[in-house]
Parts: sequence; C-alpha cells; structure tokens
Amino acid sequence: MTARIFSGEREVASVDPGNRGLAYGDGLFETMRVDSGSVPMWPRHLARLQQGAQRLGIAVPGIGFLEARMAEMTAGIGAGVLKLLLTRGEGGRGYAPPAGQAATWLLATDPLPRFQARGLRLHWCETRLAIQPALAGIKHCNRLEQVLARAECGRAGCDEGVMRDTAGNVACATGANLLVLRNGAWSTPPVLDCGVAGVLRGWLLEQGMLEVAAMLPAQLESADALALCNAVRGILPVAMLGEQAWPPHPAVAQLQAKLALAYPMYSESMEVA
Amino acid sequence: MTARIFSGEREVASVDPGNRGLAYGDGLFETMRVDSGSVPMWPRHLARLQQGAQRLGIAVPGIGFLEARMAEMTAGIGAGVLKLLLTRGEGGRGYAPPAGQAATWLLATDPLPRFQARGLRLHWCETRLAIQPALAGIKHCNRLEQVLARAECGRAGCDEGVMRDTAGNVACATGANLLVLRNGAWSTPPVLDCGVAGVLRGWLLEQGMLEVAAMLPAQLESADALALCNAVRGILPVAMLGEQAWPPHPAVAQLQAKLALAYPMYSESMEVA
Repeated sequence: MTARIFSGEREVASVDPGNRGLAYGDGLFETMRVDSGSVPMWPRHLARLQQGAQRLGIAVPGIGFLEARMAEMTAGIGAGVLKLLLTRGEGGRGYAPPAGQAATWLLATDPLPRFQARGLRLHWCETRLAIQPALAGIKHCNRLEQVLARAECGRAGCDEGVMRDTAGNVACATGANLLVLRNGAWSTPPVLDCGVAGVLRGWLLEQGMLEVAAMLPAQLESADALALCNAVRGILPVAMLGEQAWPPHPAVAQLQAKLALAYPMYSESMEVA
Repeated sequence: MTARIFSGEREVASVDPGNRGLAYGDGLFETMRVDSGSVPMWPRHLARLQQGAQRLGIAVPGIGFLEARMAEMTAGIGAGVLKLLLTRGEGGRGYAPPAGQAATWLLATDPLPRFQARGLRLHWCETRLAIQPALAGIKHCNRLEQVLARAECGRAGCDEGVMRDTAGNVACATGANLLVLRNGAWSTPPVLDCGVAGVLRGWLLEQGMLEVAAMLPAQLESADALALCNAVRGILPVAMLGEQAWPPHPAVAQLQAKLALAYPMYSESMEVA
C-alpha cells in the first residue's frame, strides 16, 4: 500500500493518534477501481461520499484539491485500486464532534486483487446486520459486523458470504451487493435499514437492469442465478450458497457483457466460459 | 494528549495508514481514571478488554508488558485520564481479518475533564442504538451512533443525552450508564442488545447497590431520581431530562458516598449540596 495523508488541504506525515476515525470509526471511505491512470466511477463514488459526509456532518476537502491528489496517485497505474478514507479529524471531548474541524483524509493505492474464473462459493453468515436507518446506505467506517462475517467466510472455506439483517431479511454480501435472478429479472435488496448503496448497484439500477426488492433467504436459495457486484471487481457469478449450487447462467454473462460495454475495465472479471 | 504507540511489544513511531482500527473501527478501547499514578479500576477494565478481544478475535498484548507501559505513562499523574486503544493491527484483504496479526495499540493520557457541581441536563436523543447482540456490552470502536447522538446533545445545549434502542427501550447515555431510582431501588438497563457494560456499573451491580431492569421512556421520566455513571467521572446526578426536572435527591448523594468510600478518587465528582 502506498499512502498519502492530509489534514484539510495540508499534507501531513502520519495519522494523529487522536484521530477520530481511529477512535470511533468516525469516517467514510470509498474503494475505487483505477483504470489507465483514472477512476471511471469517480462521480458516483464522490456522490456517495458527499451524501455520507452530509449525514455524518463531516467536512469534505475541496474537490479540486482532492481530485488533483487522486490524479497524482493514480498516474501510471494501468489497473489497480484507490482507497479514499475521510475521517472527522482529531480531537473533541469524547464522542462530541468538535466544531469546524478540518477532516483528516488519506489516499492509498493497492494492486488489483486477483480474480478467479470459477463462480464464487458463498457462506450463510451467522453474523447479522443491525437495523440502523441512520447509517444505512452510506459507506461509513463502522464495519465490525462485516469483519466478523468475513472471518466466518474464511473459516467456512468460502470466498464471500450472504448477510441477513436482524429481522431475517437478506441484505448483502460482506463486501458486495447481491444480484438475484428470478423469473428473468434481476433484483437486489433495499439498503434503507442496513447495507451499503454500492456504486455499481446504483449504475445497474439507473440502467434499468436491476430493481430493488426485499427478499427472504428461501427466495435467494430458489433463485435462477446469483451474482455479486462491487466497484472494484465488477459482476461476479455465484456458484454456491451454503448447500445450494448453480451452474453458470447466460443471464449473468449478459449482465457482465453490458457492464463491460460501458466500462471495459470490468471485462477481465467476466467468467471464463 | 500524550501518546505512545505499539505493535505487539514493539514501540512504533506512528499509526500505519493501513491500520484496521482506522479503516473499520476494528478495535476496542478503555478510558480509565488515573489516581496518584495508578489506575484503581484497571482489573475491571482489563476484564472487559479481554472479553471484547475474545468476541472480536483480536490479540491482546502481553499483560505484563502492557501494565509496565501503563505505569510509565501514569507515573507522576495525580489525577487524569488514560486511554488504551487496541486495534487488530494492519492489513488483510478488505474486511477479512489477517491471521496471526500482532495488535497495534496505543496509550494516551489526558487531563481530567472539569466537573460541574450542578446536576446534568440530558437530551432525549433522536439517534437510536441498533440492536446487535454480537457487539453489545463490549467497548468496541464502532461508535458512530454515539457520535451522532452526542452532536444532538450539543445542539440542544445539553450536557449529555439518553439513547433508546430501535425497539424503543431506554439504553444508556452516550458516554455513561444510566442509574434510575424507583421505589427506593436503583436499576440500570440491560446491555445484551446494545450499550456498553460500564466498569462502574459492574462494580455497583456486584456491590448489590444496583439491579438490571428493562425500562421504557415513561418509566425514566417518572423515576424518583436519575444519575449517570462512568469510570472517569464517577456518579453524576441528573437535574433535567427533556422537560422533566428533578431536585437533588439524597439517594444520589448516598450512592456517591458509598463509591467514594471504596474509591476516594471519585469524591471530587460528588454534587456540592
């Protein structure tokens, strides 16, 4: 990981030990796909970041300054990942957020993770997502539920996992949104109670390729096909969820092809037939 | 704030930008009262820290090493606050916790906050606590709910606030446990669904001075007296909650006196009659 850290529009050497992101997860983040030195999904990431910052009352650094630093970070990167972490900054007495505090934020680049050609094996996570409308949809830094659920997936020998909320509804994967094919149409669970409004989920919804629908575990298991989507990996087919298996489905390949047409960077995550 | 940072048993200069506490709030903390160079409540703080670390699967540094560094930090401090922040350390692919990772942790001292002689004014917080048994009771670093609720208190001109859970039950204050006097007995809400098992709350329960009881907002408003407790400030009387006001109650002073007898450091937070 290569990182640069800023306080407002001033570069700093390190993260202050009194940083509120560190103390309370008091921040937001975006994990973005870099393609040929730029971030094609940036406008969507920025919109979500701004929405999250407004909900939490965190100052967003000047967009021009931020974009200039991003361009410096991504220059020369053919394919990779750029992470933006925006924290409320330092200090305050306990939980009370200090007034007029400049945000502390960082940019970090990482290599693109390896993709596997085969469909994903998913675990039914025991860890549930709490119902919290005040934090649902935004990509905030309170992610212990996802950390615990992802640890379960590893112990189960699975690639990822499906999380339910505490009311029993299907919510999302630990680090991706769910795409569920039923009766020839793709749907994804709502993100009003929990979960993250994924950038790629948003694009698919806007294109009319996807609709929002509440769903129970049985509806997931009886689906015609499942896939996951996120902004780093694109659309990934699911081969197994718990004991349930699915053969490759042409509708997944079609969805991947439509995405690759708009964003060619995602073509490499397409399943090898 | 004076801070020292460690990775396992090695002191480091700064917090790595890839720290998981910073990224996901993937950690635990204890905020402790320092008295004459030591931390009288340390065994209780340590027990809660170890319980949290077990729940989250975070490695605790060697206790002897940790205690030696704490002693160095608190030497010469007559009265103050010591914070211990324990994170899962660096790295891992996304949410997946890396195996065998040494924890990154820090110790920081701060002056004792000023206490006010008058009773506290409390706000009814709109921000609710989500019901999440997997994280309830422990003092983890996912604290956005408390940050949002505490910001509400500031806007309302109040000292602190009462939080309800999403089911409508009374839970706690943003940074303290609630003590509620009804029919001559003190009770405090359970912490099985949300909230933190406070160190001082635990002591009061063990002494038989307090019992656990679920409660609704109306029961709080009709209580004979209210107080807050936490390990830094001791027992603080409440003068107002929303529109409801309480005159000083002798039972609060009695509880404070019993605490001060066992832990004289808390005598300075007693209400001036």
